[in-house]
Amino acid sequence: MSIKSDILKVKAAATVLSTVSCEIRNAALESVAKALEENKEEIFKQNAKDLENAEKLGIGEAVKKRLSFNEDKLKSVTDGIYQLINLEDPIGKITLSRELDSDLKLYRVTCPIGVIGVIFEARPDALVQIATLCLKSGNCAVLKGGKETACTNKILFDIIYNAAISSGLPEHCLLQASTHSEIDELLDCGGYVDLLIPRGSNGFVKYIMENTQIPVMGHSDGICHIYVDKEADLKKACSIVTDAKIQYCAACNAVETLLVNRQEAHKLLPELISALKKAGVTVNATREVADICQVDEVVEDGFNKEYLDLAITVKLTDNVKTAIEYINKNGSHHTDAIITENIETAEEFLNGVDSADVYFNCSTRFSDGFRYGFGAEVGISTGKLHARGPVGLEGLVTYKYKIYGNGNIVGDYAKGIKKFNFKDI
Amino acid sequence: MSIKSDILKVKAAATVLSTVSCEIRNAALESVAKALEENKEEIFKQNAKDLENAEKLGIGEAVKKRLSFNEDKLKSVTDGIYQLINLEDPIGKITLSRELDSDLKLYRVTCPIGVIGVIFEARPDALVQIATLCLKSGNCAVLKGGKETACTNKILFDIIYNAAISSGLPEHCLLQASTHSEIDELLDCGGYVDLLIPRGSNGFVKYIMENTQIPVMGHSDGICHIYVDKEADLKKACSIVTDAKIQYCAACNAVETLLVNRQEAHKLLPELISALKKAGVTVNATREVADICQVDEVVEDGFNKEYLDLAITVKLTDNVKTAIEYINKNGSHHTDAIITENIETAEEFLNGVDSADVYFNCSTRFSDGFRYGFGAEVGISTGKLHARGPVGLEGLVTYKYKIYGNGNIVGDYAKGIKKFNFKDI
Repeated sequence: MSIKSDILKVKAAATVLSTVSCEIRNAALESVAKALEENKEEIFKQNAKDLENAEKLGIGEAVKKRLSFNEDKLKSVTDGIYQLINLEDPIGKITLSRELDSDLKLYRVTCPIGVIGVIFEARPDALVQIATLCLKSGNCAVLKGGKETACTNKILFDIIYNAAISSGLPEHCLLQASTHSEIDELLDCGGYVDLLIPRGSNGFVKYIMENTQIPVMGHSDGICHIYVDKEADLKKACSIVTDAKIQYCAACNAVETLLVNRQEAHKLLPELISALKKAGVTVNATREVADICQVDEVVEDGFNKEYLDLAITVKLTDNVKTAIEYINKNGSHHTDAIITENIETAEEFLNGVDSADVYFNCSTRFSDGFRYGFGAEVGISTGKLHARGPVGLEGLVTYKYKIYGNGNIVGDYAKGIKKFNFKDI
Repeated sequence: MSIKSDILKVKAAATVLSTVSCEIRNAALESVAKALEENKEEIFKQNAKDLENAEKLGIGEAVKKRLSFNEDKLKSVTDGIYQLINLEDPIGKITLSRELDSDLKLYRVTCPIGVIGVIFEARPDALVQIATLCLKSGNCAVLKGGKETACTNKILFDIIYNAAISSGLPEHCLLQASTHSEIDELLDCGGYVDLLIPRGSNGFVKYIMENTQIPVMGHSDGICHIYVDKEADLKKACSIVTDAKIQYCAACNAVETLLVNRQEAHKLLPELISALKKAGVTVNATREVADICQVDEVVEDGFNKEYLDLAITVKLTDNVKTAIEYINKNGSHHTDAIITENIETAEEFLNGVDSADVYFNCSTRFSDGFRYGFGAEVGISTGKLHARGPVGLEGLVTYKYKIYGNGNIVGDYAKGIKKFNFKDI
């Protein structure tokens, strides 16, 4: 049985959900939060089954942490839902209103995108987070979670879906896909699914991006750079570079490549590298860096590497121009920073680097929806269209143009019988 | 020789162009307009060659009109350039500014997308229009025109490019692709080309959309509907439906399917169909329509047809709900209108129809950037992400997040040593 016929029902529900009031959507979110709290023992029981299976399969501790759904995770997702309820309604906002003629008015109004396909690996809390973000923004969602948490996903989905429809949201507003083959079916649903949001490893996201005609919001690689300029404050540089590497090295916004000004390398490198090594970071560097101070390994190519680990590549570069060129060519357009006390050099870097997030004298780790004050985060996008960088609720809306007329026809304007007046109102 | 190596140079030029001031971009546009005027005799001469070739190939008069580049077309494109100069700079606009902490400021700033690939059939004036739109918005462009106007395209490109770089825009900011095989090479340039804008027939645009991983802005089909409600003003309905069909029937925003309320069909149909037939429109309709009044052909399926000609499909439907369902299922999400005197019914239609442009009591032909007062038009998009409906200059920009810090690290906030204050400034 194909999932497509079910997705057609979701598509139909999207028309209904798009016109449901914010009060009802918020009430549904509140029911979801309460239902999750009320059924927590059953959720933990199902999660225990998944964790037992993981144990049997010999899945490592780090991954098992991601699979677990405990009191802490429950609190984190329900807190998130209550925050979401308090956020302003992202739909129905008028972003342009213009009189084309005295009896012909044009409005641009935000509205839901329609059907969002969400495919995620491992973390069952992501299911709750994204399903509720979709409902807040009036979007239907097709959710496909990883098989490692099949039992947890199923109960979470059932609780969310039942709470949503008993609060007045349309039937089929959410759909759970559960078999692996359904991923490829979902990727093939152009025309029914309007946007895909993959959450998982780089390889997984890359696979999604390369195998669908549906627009994808997200990022695969996060190869972030820090350029330490000749006019850098060395104390700031050491602190920022270390934070950007070790504060959470598995994150996509952790620094992977350090570029240091060649002219001042003798002055800058020893302290930078010593700070990194003291923090437990493996330093791989070019020969000319190794000639100045001791490194772990000398590398001469393969620089654009995403370690996602306590390791970094260090390389010299002539100036801010060559740093910009290098980053635009080798980076992943995610987050890149410059350390300098010269604001003009900084501006050149911020304007020239073609990345979603460009920073002056601070850690690349700030690139995150919560740290930007967006409340809920849909994800981080390295695409340039629609939404770029950390994406809040507004990434889940589009707009439509509405015109209110009174029998107006184009022929009258073409013939000069009537004239447009284009007055913003 | 592959075009990819040339596109790499364009990609590098994009970094430079993105930082060129609006004064210089406007001065370049002025030089372009003047150079086109000064070299018009040579342009007309090259165009004559293309038209001679078209003659030899037996190309029809309608297409030949599109191929021609004469005084009128020159005036129209240079007028367009002078208008473009007067439009506000779309880049460098700050759309969010927020203090994350007293010494940590976040800004969201509009910036060019980068490299735009433009592929168009026939009309050489489109080359001038889109090249200048790209330069105004700080984007580099790769232009591929149709072989039918190869001579005209070549001279237009040379004039524009030389005027642009002698005004201070970076070398390689524009590139002309001239052989047909380069289309497929261009479609394969993901990572170097950020956005594709195809302009041409439906089949052509569909081919582009289905054969690239690069985001595409545009539309293939324009299957627009008008629903005549039971509470319609019949006079308005006749006038609007006729205008929407005949004012320019080859346009994407011309109406293709007329849905009429079944309950009032006996009252509404005779005048509607008589108005259409009087205007020379071929009326294809279902059996139940034919039972009420005479039609040209009875059809029972294949309704979602884009005629692009003086022909229309007429069909009955129960009410606004069924009309919405029908349009969402069979339309192309372009432009759809309702004729009614009941504003509540109208609101239900405008909210429920999942199209870029939804109209109340006016012709579908209003769906156009010029008629929306956008000045220059990039195209009309039926995609829901980034830009939807008629797209002005703002469809050619994206944004980046800039943070200005003072040595700030995430560790301090994670440990609670410092606190975010999230104050919009």
